[in-house]
Amino acid sequence: MKNELIGNCIVGQSGGPTAVINASIYGVIRTALDDPHINKVFGAAHGIRGILDDVLYDMNKEAAYELSLLLNTPSCALGSCRYKLKDIEEDDSDYKRILEIFKKYDVRYFFYNGGNDSMDTCNKISKYFQQVGYECRVMGVPKTIDNDLYGTDHCPGFPSAARYIISTCMELYLDARVYDTPMICVVEIMGRHAGWLTASAAAATYTGFGPDLIYLPETDFDVDEFISDVKEVYEDGGKVFIAVSEGIHDKTGKLISEYGSEPTMIDGFGHKQLGGLAATLVNILRKHFPTTKIRGIEFSLLQRCASHAASQTDISESYEAGRVAVEYAVHGITDKMVGFRRKMDEDGNYKCEIKLIDLEACANTERKVPREWINSRGNGLRKPYIDYLLPLIQGEPKIPLQNGLPRFANLKKIKARPPRKIEAHNEK
Amino acid sequence: MKNELIGNCIVGQSGGPTAVINASIYGVIRTALDDPHINKVFGAAHGIRGILDDVLYDMNKEAAYELSLLLNTPSCALGSCRYKLKDIEEDDSDYKRILEIFKKYDVRYFFYNGGNDSMDTCNKISKYFQQVGYECRVMGVPKTIDNDLYGTDHCPGFPSAARYIISTCMELYLDARVYDTPMICVVEIMGRHAGWLTASAAAATYTGFGPDLIYLPETDFDVDEFISDVKEVYEDGGKVFIAVSEGIHDKTGKLISEYGSEPTMIDGFGHKQLGGLAATLVNILRKHFPTTKIRGIEFSLLQRCASHAASQTDISESYEAGRVAVEYAVHGITDKMVGFRRKMDEDGNYKCEIKLIDLEACANTERKVPREWINSRGNGLRKPYIDYLLPLIQGEPKIPLQNGLPRFANLKKIKARPPRKIEAHNEK
Repeated sequence: MKNELIGNCIVGQSGGPTAVINASIYGVIRTALDDPHINKVFGAAHGIRGILDDVLYDMNKEAAYELSLLLNTPSCALGSCRYKLKDIEEDDSDYKRILEIFKKYDVRYFFYNGGNDSMDTCNKISKYFQQVGYECRVMGVPKTIDNDLYGTDHCPGFPSAARYIISTCMELYLDARVYDTPMICVVEIMGRHAGWLTASAAAATYTGFGPDLIYLPETDFDVDEFISDVKEVYEDGGKVFIAVSEGIHDKTGKLISEYGSEPTMIDGFGHKQLGGLAATLVNILRKHFPTTKIRGIEFSLLQRCASHAASQTDISESYEAGRVAVEYAVHGITDKMVGFRRKMDEDGNYKCEIKLIDLEACANTERKVPREWINSRGNGLRKPYIDYLLPLIQGEPKIPLQNGLPRFANLKKIKARPPRKIEAHNEK
Repeated sequence: MKNELIGNCIVGQSGGPTAVINASIYGVIRTALDDPHINKVFGAAHGIRGILDDVLYDMNKEAAYELSLLLNTPSCALGSCRYKLKDIEEDDSDYKRILEIFKKYDVRYFFYNGGNDSMDTCNKISKYFQQVGYECRVMGVPKTIDNDLYGTDHCPGFPSAARYIISTCMELYLDARVYDTPMICVVEIMGRHAGWLTASAAAATYTGFGPDLIYLPETDFDVDEFISDVKEVYEDGGKVFIAVSEGIHDKTGKLISEYGSEPTMIDGFGHKQLGGLAATLVNILRKHFPTTKIRGIEFSLLQRCASHAASQTDISESYEAGRVAVEYAVHGITDKMVGFRRKMDEDGNYKCEIKLIDLEACANTERKVPREWINSRGNGLRKPYIDYLLPLIQGEPKIPLQNGLPRFANLKKIKARPPRKIEAHNEK
């Protein structure tokens, strides 16, 4: 093989967890453990922090079965961080420290699993290694429930969160219709700048059991228009189901969640004032519907770690992203993020192909829901979005159980020791 | 057959919905449609309200497949109510109206599906019919996620809600441990007077991925003890996961959720004050852990309608409760609620047998978690509770899908017309 590079590898996770981020690192770890170019596989404790602090776990010491359970274990098994590397011109001490640790452990492969900020970290490290001439293959493995990474059709983690949201919205729709009295229900869904996840609630609507109104941060939110939208739906049966992205904002860019600072805890109708966007909207609605039952629901952390409702397509693709990152790296590729290209076969069946995207591009761009997929009023999604989403959420995972409960991975996390001698053929 | 009674039947649902209450009415409807003693099957729109308002749906006009989808459709397909019948001595007009409607539609079988209050309604109607000599078999079919009905080992709906809570707590446990910074997470679970559902979070703890502290309304809650409990857990790693029943109260009986009325929306640390129990506890904790990330999560409606995480054991037993209610009724039984008796076979395998409980008894008694199943400190559950719970939450349902999304029942709900002539053999 050309470009042969022998050494050890580090895999790390960064940013918010998802239901399937561990499937990706399992893809990396399993493939790296089995590849002859890679000797030792180290897991960085809490992402880049673990590298800076010299806390690496020895993945070769984990039982194969326990590692395989990562496929269905949510959250970040190695721990995550939100550490942002300074620009190298400003302060290069972190970079020097990282290089020192990489040399200490003879690390020649680095796989970083995360979203926008993590790809920024990954890119900076990659460029630094190039600059100082340290031979190391650096690959980004995408994840984010926000689905906002540049250059890829979709992001691992998003389909599973979407599947959870669709199921839950369908269930809530029915729950909110139990009594023959009016009811307004406001559901707050994650997504600061991109509305992909909130938009997924439209797939519930598409089945006949979903929100009447959906608001994304891709359009400006106007409270008067909102009230008018709600009134219109309300007049037709007294039931209104609303889904909102946490990041919705008015035309000045002010977050709607910041509208809620009333002087007292109790409003004119004796209702307690609440915090958060759902609560803010509930308080606004109460002024217009003083006698109606209004409920605000935050999906909170539940939506990003719900492995029990994950998409099998997502799990398989997430694993695949990790696996091919290693495959490409040992074949000489570096400085790229793994991405997905959608391909529909002749029968219209969905297929997902791997593509590679420059880390530099991923690090600096945010992808939003196309405006033309949102209706003109900005309160619902059009059919092309549903067509985009549905193939991604197919398949129910077969979750390993013990006593009928999920059997999550329990890694030993044994602290790694640096290899005794550096492999001679990689020395410069 | 002795005690042969031919006529029509009404089935109704009442109280809060569950993931499996429709499985029970499917048990009733399917069995009643197939039984030669029962001619027409009517569904009461919104429980007893539909009877009072003369709004009954003709179940004979529904497609068999659509009805079968009720097995996996959450919430109350016929609609529910929270209508409480007055005592007959006080006002008998509702009773007279109910009798009028039963006679109008020649109803000789009545199945009412609900919790404590619904069994009270069911019991009152049963006693009234006996009093006025109207021959009608009246059977209660239990449901409640609260698991607090008297005389039955457990209640349909509880195991599915418990299964959802366990899975979700396990996922949250992992999510809350992602970063290497301290974090306190407070989860609020339904249960005003009985803590069965909150207690189920202990099964997550039992797997190693669950709450550190669990508080039920069965014991008095003391804020100072609570803070001391939290501090003890906090000192061992800075991560604390707490599950609380919405109904926890102090020794005077005051709800802890009512502790939260602070004069302003913003506390000394700039955090917004929130409503609800989780939020109240978050605000209390913030005073003691001013720099720690503290998150309050309400499971809200999600926990009672999560059919995607239902227990197959619960679905099967809920169906069975409806089915045998009809079987018993056509064989002459009346004035009873169907209940469950637990039987362990020689190999220690769980079996559920049907028993019958007097409606009168069910209507007036609330069953709580035995004190001896709660630890002495009142902040966790003992092993016997886990042994009680685990058999109930076994089995994953195979949910019918369309486009990869749940295919919920879509009933036509055609308004019933009274039968043209009353069956002669039932005339008095």
